[in-house]
Amino acid sequence: MSDAPSDIGFDGDRLLRRVAELARVGASAAGGVTREAWGPADLAARDLVAGWMVEAGLSPEVDAAANLIGRSPGRGGRWLATGSHLDTVVDGGTLDGAYGVVAAIEVAASLHDTGRVMEHGLLVAAFANEEGARGTSGMTGSHACVGLHADTPVEELDDDGVTVGERLRHAGGDPAALDHACWPLADVEAFVELHIEQGPVLDDTGRPIGVVSGITGRQGLDVVVHGAANHAGTTPMHLRHDALAAAAEIVLAIESLPRDGGVRVATCGHVAASPNVRNVIPGQVALGVELRDQDAAVLDAAMLGVDAMLARVAVARGVTVDARWGQRVPPVASDPAVVASVRRVAGAMGLAWIDLPSGAGHDAQIIGRVLPIGMIFVPSVGGVSHSPRERTDAADLLAGAEALLRTLLDLDGRSR
Amino acid sequence: MSDAPSDIGFDGDRLLRRVAELARVGASAAGGVTREAWGPADLAARDLVAGWMVEAGLSPEVDAAANLIGRSPGRGGRWLATGSHLDTVVDGGTLDGAYGVVAAIEVAASLHDTGRVMEHGLLVAAFANEEGARGTSGMTGSHACVGLHADTPVEELDDDGVTVGERLRHAGGDPAALDHACWPLADVEAFVELHIEQGPVLDDTGRPIGVVSGITGRQGLDVVVHGAANHAGTTPMHLRHDALAAAAEIVLAIESLPRDGGVRVATCGHVAASPNVRNVIPGQVALGVELRDQDAAVLDAAMLGVDAMLARVAVARGVTVDARWGQRVPPVASDPAVVASVRRVAGAMGLAWIDLPSGAGHDAQIIGRVLPIGMIFVPSVGGVSHSPRERTDAADLLAGAEALLRTLLDLDGRSR
Repeated sequence: MSDAPSDIGFDGDRLLRRVAELARVGASAAGGVTREAWGPADLAARDLVAGWMVEAGLSPEVDAAANLIGRSPGRGGRWLATGSHLDTVVDGGTLDGAYGVVAAIEVAASLHDTGRVMEHGLLVAAFANEEGARGTSGMTGSHACVGLHADTPVEELDDDGVTVGERLRHAGGDPAALDHACWPLADVEAFVELHIEQGPVLDDTGRPIGVVSGITGRQGLDVVVHGAANHAGTTPMHLRHDALAAAAEIVLAIESLPRDGGVRVATCGHVAASPNVRNVIPGQVALGVELRDQDAAVLDAAMLGVDAMLARVAVARGVTVDARWGQRVPPVASDPAVVASVRRVAGAMGLAWIDLPSGAGHDAQIIGRVLPIGMIFVPSVGGVSHSPRERTDAADLLAGAEALLRTLLDLDGRSR
Repeated sequence: MSDAPSDIGFDGDRLLRRVAELARVGASAAGGVTREAWGPADLAARDLVAGWMVEAGLSPEVDAAANLIGRSPGRGGRWLATGSHLDTVVDGGTLDGAYGVVAAIEVAASLHDTGRVMEHGLLVAAFANEEGARGTSGMTGSHACVGLHADTPVEELDDDGVTVGERLRHAGGDPAALDHACWPLADVEAFVELHIEQGPVLDDTGRPIGVVSGITGRQGLDVVVHGAANHAGTTPMHLRHDALAAAAEIVLAIESLPRDGGVRVATCGHVAASPNVRNVIPGQVALGVELRDQDAAVLDAAMLGVDAMLARVAVARGVTVDARWGQRVPPVASDPAVVASVRRVAGAMGLAWIDLPSGAGHDAQIIGRVLPIGMIFVPSVGGVSHSPRERTDAADLLAGAEALLRTLLDLDGRSR
């Protein structure tokens, strides 16, 4: 760990230049970037990055799941994997995903430029459709890489009525051959993903490096409150069954879950009332809720508490509450060996770090269901992401990328 | 008050038949009726009713405000006025407004059929645009009848971008001559409006007649909560400024106003959140609120309390709350002489009655700003109105109409 940056061939200027170059592919008028998965900008970014892979000594290929995978063999038969995604949300930021891919290629380039060959081969992934373009479930590519493609069915229709399978085919994939996209799982040592935090913790605490302890699980919940729509002037208060007032109690109870020792975060992000006019008591209100925690048992316990709360509100207000528990994205813990390695590297580089969970979902969450994973976070200024205002200081971008390189070298040295 | 129905020429079958006939003009697929003001169905209903006016010995005319007014002179120079409106909300009920117009014509017909001439002339009004078609303020016609047309400006644009003035012209009115629609105010003794309750009180208490003590005032309020939209997974609870959670506190505080001794009823009927997706903390929420009370001073006091509550929520949650107090429709008290007359008549007819305020707005509320008014309510089954399920038992419809006739005769006898 005593190598200075120059010793290991790390070219920070090239990294920043490439991040900026990628930002121009799908640049939006608002200053962000729109590269919806499988669309023209996403495919153009993939082509650009494939060229950089070749320069870095990686052999790129587009797999059956439309992932761009670059490989450079090592001295032994095992692999270390890294990477992230190139697709973005609509008018998203320039770093989300792209930074982790560019940094992964910089890792390969550093090895290539210095003629160094690791014991492990290096596998660099640009996963397809992490974000869930056009209303799809997302994480399409990473699922296929670990043989879980059945969890993201190719029959799924997007908002345009087009199946994921058709989108895949258009992007150079083969929806009938997704099995072929699966990595040689027994031979992969670990997957390490570098990413911006997309939250305020590092910025708030002034640490340049986040050692991700795990990725929080997410439990969705759809609530529909059925009350009685009625005239807001003529219906006495004691004869009302106001669906919005009941929903307001539910929103506040959901918000109080973390305070009361429940899940890590709980959010009601969606509300829709009917008939939704000022002079009619709301008859029906739908809420979209999600709970996140690193511990599946905590999520399970919170669900029971929420069910009980909803039943209490229904009885107290004479309304009906339909609750439909939706998608559960299970929490994933980081591999202790990867966590230890990132901490060691950050310490050796003199970078202040903290352990923190990832509240956002990442491809590493999918890979981590099958393989050992870890993540390195760098600060998001103001915690902003999925926005043209997404930003990370250049020094932090460089420190994170170098930490990724050193972490992979550290893992290579220890597990050879 | 000893006349039996037959003695006073009251034809209940004709009344029910005409209510049913009107229900077919603009009948909706859902079993209700859609006669938006100034539209084809509304104008067709007006033509139909004008014919009934002629049969009942009334001289009908369409005034400059597109009201249909039928007059039958009395022995003296003064007038008693009655009526309601023919326009409906979209997919509304068959009784709201129409019942009061048909019953008013039945009053005239009863006098005509029995050759009876009152001391007062009878003025029967079918007011234009009570409901506020296509997003307009409503009560257009009744404002003009008492010289208040400046309060419902003809420049107002409806949801289709058409001015009220253009709508009026299309419906046979003359927006430049609204002064001519004003009644001879000094010569009008009183206006009495018969209407379904549109609320549950009479049905709930089993009384066929409601003696309306006054019409509650209404105070509108638009609230916009500005918080901070952020990632629902990565933003710790203590760093959030959740606009929907703040709005939920406001909704519950508004609902508690009547319980805490404030206004008679308070409602939050409208909510709109942004960006309104499950996995983003709501950054902005708009609420549409209204408060109703019979006492303007109570409304004033409640406004101060609401302003204080909003400021507390803003400070406690680190959000900005913009409150815009909107339209105030002032409360109107019924004229004591009309109230006394309705009570006397109901008692003489052996009908159980109670005093109650009108929570809904009515043309009588506008007329009452200038002239003595009163209202008679009949039960709405289940309190339902503005709905195809709006219903009143035939016996109650007949009792109410006969009470209207007898009230006008009583007022005529006492003030001659």
